[in-house]
Amino acid sequence: MAKNITNPEKDYARWYQDVIREAELADSAPVRGCMVIRPYGYSIWENIKASLNASFKKTGHKNAYFPLFIPESFIKREAEHVEGFAPELAIVTHAGGKKLEESLVVRPTSETIINHMFSKWINSYRDLPMLLNQWANVVRWEMRPRAFLRTTEFLWQEGHTAHADEKEAREETLRMLNVYADFARNVAAIPVIPGRKTEREKFAGAVDSYTIEAMMGNGWALQSGTSHYLGTNFARVFETMYLDSSNEQQFVHQTSWGVSTRLVGAVIMAHGDENGLRLPPELAPVQVVIVPIARDETARADVMTVVERIRDDLDKKGIRVEVDDREGMSPGFKFNHWEVRGVPLRLEIGPRDLEEGHVMASQRNRPGRDSKFTISLDSIVDSIPGILERIQSEMFEEAIQKRDSRTYTAENLDDFREAIVSKPGFYNVWWDGDTEDEARLQKETKATVRCIPLEQREGTGKCFMTGRETNTRVIIARAY
Amino acid sequence: MAKNITNPEKDYARWYQDVIREAELADSAPVRGCMVIRPYGYSIWENIKASLNASFKKTGHKNAYFPLFIPESFIKREAEHVEGFAPELAIVTHAGGKKLEESLVVRPTSETIINHMFSKWINSYRDLPMLLNQWANVVRWEMRPRAFLRTTEFLWQEGHTAHADEKEAREETLRMLNVYADFARNVAAIPVIPGRKTEREKFAGAVDSYTIEAMMGNGWALQSGTSHYLGTNFARVFETMYLDSSNEQQFVHQTSWGVSTRLVGAVIMAHGDENGLRLPPELAPVQVVIVPIARDETARADVMTVVERIRDDLDKKGIRVEVDDREGMSPGFKFNHWEVRGVPLRLEIGPRDLEEGHVMASQRNRPGRDSKFTISLDSIVDSIPGILERIQSEMFEEAIQKRDSRTYTAENLDDFREAIVSKPGFYNVWWDGDTEDEARLQKETKATVRCIPLEQREGTGKCFMTGRETNTRVIIARAY
Repeated sequence: MAKNITNPEKDYARWYQDVIREAELADSAPVRGCMVIRPYGYSIWENIKASLNASFKKTGHKNAYFPLFIPESFIKREAEHVEGFAPELAIVTHAGGKKLEESLVVRPTSETIINHMFSKWINSYRDLPMLLNQWANVVRWEMRPRAFLRTTEFLWQEGHTAHADEKEAREETLRMLNVYADFARNVAAIPVIPGRKTEREKFAGAVDSYTIEAMMGNGWALQSGTSHYLGTNFARVFETMYLDSSNEQQFVHQTSWGVSTRLVGAVIMAHGDENGLRLPPELAPVQVVIVPIARDETARADVMTVVERIRDDLDKKGIRVEVDDREGMSPGFKFNHWEVRGVPLRLEIGPRDLEEGHVMASQRNRPGRDSKFTISLDSIVDSIPGILERIQSEMFEEAIQKRDSRTYTAENLDDFREAIVSKPGFYNVWWDGDTEDEARLQKETKATVRCIPLEQREGTGKCFMTGRETNTRVIIARAY
Repeated sequence: MAKNITNPEKDYARWYQDVIREAELADSAPVRGCMVIRPYGYSIWENIKASLNASFKKTGHKNAYFPLFIPESFIKREAEHVEGFAPELAIVTHAGGKKLEESLVVRPTSETIINHMFSKWINSYRDLPMLLNQWANVVRWEMRPRAFLRTTEFLWQEGHTAHADEKEAREETLRMLNVYADFARNVAAIPVIPGRKTEREKFAGAVDSYTIEAMMGNGWALQSGTSHYLGTNFARVFETMYLDSSNEQQFVHQTSWGVSTRLVGAVIMAHGDENGLRLPPELAPVQVVIVPIARDETARADVMTVVERIRDDLDKKGIRVEVDDREGMSPGFKFNHWEVRGVPLRLEIGPRDLEEGHVMASQRNRPGRDSKFTISLDSIVDSIPGILERIQSEMFEEAIQKRDSRTYTAENLDDFREAIVSKPGFYNVWWDGDTEDEARLQKETKATVRCIPLEQREGTGKCFMTGRETNTRVIIARAY
């Protein structure tokens, strides 16, 4: 067990904080609920951004930038929207040495201001679809902040699109949900469950909200990305209209979708273990760390020649590699340093390895002895991409197994009430409840309906709360 | 002359606004002084970011993210800093439905909050140098906003570094000024003049400020990037100290440096002409546009086969290429569309070109007939990188010539007073004035001392204001 890291079995919340501190991912800021993202944590976010940004461009979206400040009156135009966001707003009342005539809201999300602009830019069906995205900071005043998961200010992307009709907008909503699900699975190695949100859990202002739900190491759920079909709700209040091909004015149908720095929290909690972070190679700021080991200067020179050659060759292949040649620190100290930071592959190279023509390797994702193997010096540079792919897929497989082993069902509320405490996890249950049932469920068990999975089994069964026959199953869990 | 674009000779300010509108770079936002950066404008900024970000990483800097909100008391700690920024601050007084105990400043720059964190992270000389950068939005309340040049909210990067001593910190200050100057010259094709700011013009809280000054199309100067040696000014008020190798507590010496979306304005005004934008290939969102020309469907199919092959081959080479195959629009309309947007190279391909084995090319940077040439179809993909390099260097050469042809001198204030009106440009003059002289200069001529160039001639002369003998020359100009 790593020094300074609480056993996650004992106290998961503390383990999470310990990992963030020891891996230097983030630090708390002087303003309550705000966070400083340190270079190592920010670098994970940069890798998340790069991957998603490429997917957004491939699906035809362009980046733009909309203002941080939104006139307070804008937020109030859409009734559900203001109801949802009013309690979380930060308000600028003074600027330039004066009290402002109209207070400004620091954006909690940008549907309103973007609709204001869309209504200027969209005139005819030829302007559609309009497919924009922005990478930005947003502010939602947070009463119970938790690093990465819930912070007053966070970084995110928000996609905003306008379409000629409902069909196209609904297709876009699901397309972007799939982009998120693919990212989670293939890049973050997290086996998310895509589904629709219930009426109670949907975005303030949406017709339908979709989510990808991930399971964290303690069996809790984390909503890791959302995609909304907004219908014409914002278009109506901002008069975002277009002239269709028969010269009729029509409201646009819209979508919005976002993921945030919360994903860094998802990566920590989906993969981390008692020794700290474990990063999937696709997201790791450092994919391979090389620790040269040499007792004296002569040995050191020989070792460094080989180490630097390997480093340069890996670098040319686009692999993120670092050599830890710091002096005055023991190999053990360095191993621990990179283990806590979740670097997927560690290579140790000493004089004896050179003689024997191989290097010692250690895969961060595997426990104990299973992590160790040797790689022939002759083929090392060619074999590493394959090893990183293997780590990536092993981590995904392990996460699937963990999730499945903690996915249960429940026949009725009484059973569930006990089960969710003794066996926290995802409960896949028959469901025909309404918003009041959901409220009661949460009050009594602290669990919520995470989503109505897009993939549903055949057949019917009895709703575990109401007893009514239904063909719908949902995922219920405790959630962050 | 392009439709909808005012002649820049007639009204430069209006020309600038027209280009921004017609090239769809930005739009004004509902909050005064704020701006919406549209996809085409944002894409230029993304290219600026990518280039600078690579340079920052190469010089050992890491990206991080610090909070948007700064406690009001922080800003007040450094006396010059608060004096400089107080009039421009936006203040959050209410959040989460309550009045805050301490108001929050929306960051105008981050020296204070970063020092707060540095004082936690820096303990010993082993922690130094600390070399961080952040890409972020900042807010400075703006009374006379102008798109990209001066907006209430703008996007920028701010580098913040801490060093063991003055020498190292001063080296860093100049290193980053050079990174900016190299970027301006080699990527933005703008021949900037690096220099030191006078006492009157320096950053609020700095010991010394350095700048790169660029000449715009109307002969005015634009401060395009700054790098500051902060000394121990912030370290003293935030107690950012380290234990040196002899176990003594020392204050760190610091730097900060930044460029912003203002650079997009610099590119517009350094290169634009009466037909709109002209973009250096290194920054152009679209480097090559191909306009297929065909009267009937059969011809169109043949043409498109070739066009798509060229597009794919250029794409593989990493060249940003777009095919404008929109229907129902004339070639002339399309030519104009891409000309206004400053695309460096346009290719026209029609059935006759295929027969003759070449394509018509047009270089946006050259005027009239000189812009046209043909490229053999056989070698087109191989020749385009070289053509783009040629455009890049021609644009830089042209900008140097323009700057030099508008660089003058003046012997005394009376001469200058008339000259700056009849011949706006850079005035390279002997200078031995003080802050009061500068204030008087600005009051009487609206011109300011832009910088004390790092490169100084040998010899001495009489200060053009005071008549005192001096060995220093400065650049004086009207400025944005």
